[in-house]
Amino acid sequence: MCPYRLVLEHLTSRWGVLVLIELLERDYRFSELRRAIGRVSEKMLTQTLQTLERDGLVHRDAKPVIPPRVDYSLTDLGREAAQQVRALAVWTEQRMDAVQQARDAYDAAKRHH
Amino acid sequence: MCPYRLVLEHLTSRWGVLVLIELLERDYRFSELRRAIGRVSEKMLTQTLQTLERDGLVHRDAKPVIPPRVDYSLTDLGREAAQQVRALAVWTEQRMDAVQQARDAYDAAKRHH
Repeated sequence: MCPYRLVLEHLTSRWGVLVLIELLERDYRFSELRRAIGRVSEKMLTQTLQTLERDGLVHRDAKPVIPPRVDYSLTDLGREAAQQVRALAVWTEQRMDAVQQARDAYDAAKRHH
Repeated sequence: MCPYRLVLEHLTSRWGVLVLIELLERDYRFSELRRAIGRVSEKMLTQTLQTLERDGLVHRDAKPVIPPRVDYSLTDLGREAAQQVRALAVWTEQRMDAVQQARDAYDAAKRHH
């Protein structure tokens, strides 16, 4: 597989998409981000953030305070990626009616065969 | 899962990306498309095309000739989707150097802990 395919998979993974879109709005602490995304386990969110951090898309800022505080933000590279991903996600959401109509027509045609 | 997430997964699946990008260039017969993409099994390409056809993104035109001939093209909806997907794929390819640098730095920092 071309190396860029793996990065594309990170960008378009279930939680990757949501993390990038949320961080495009503002920086988040881990617990806030988890609430904003909803239904994501702590483990999955941690893994997603680590992957995006390693790819250079997300910046992790661990503040040496008590209790520990970790902030997440997009890097410049991550902001570019997130804008592309958001455009694709918004397009898909906006065109769901057309997709659903196509599916209904496809399924009806299959039933008549 | 929101319904649009599934469509986003079809658009960004390993073979979905490549099919959409190839069909943005021109229409293809099945066998030509398989050669253009490379390393994809007949079964996986068939499944990918069926999924995209059902979503209303790809048009399948089976010509009543001998030997059978099937042409695939993008619908208007599919063309819109493919342009977004290509933009994301091109961005990712172009920025792979930056991603790789970030990974090297990340891995080096982990080793020193």
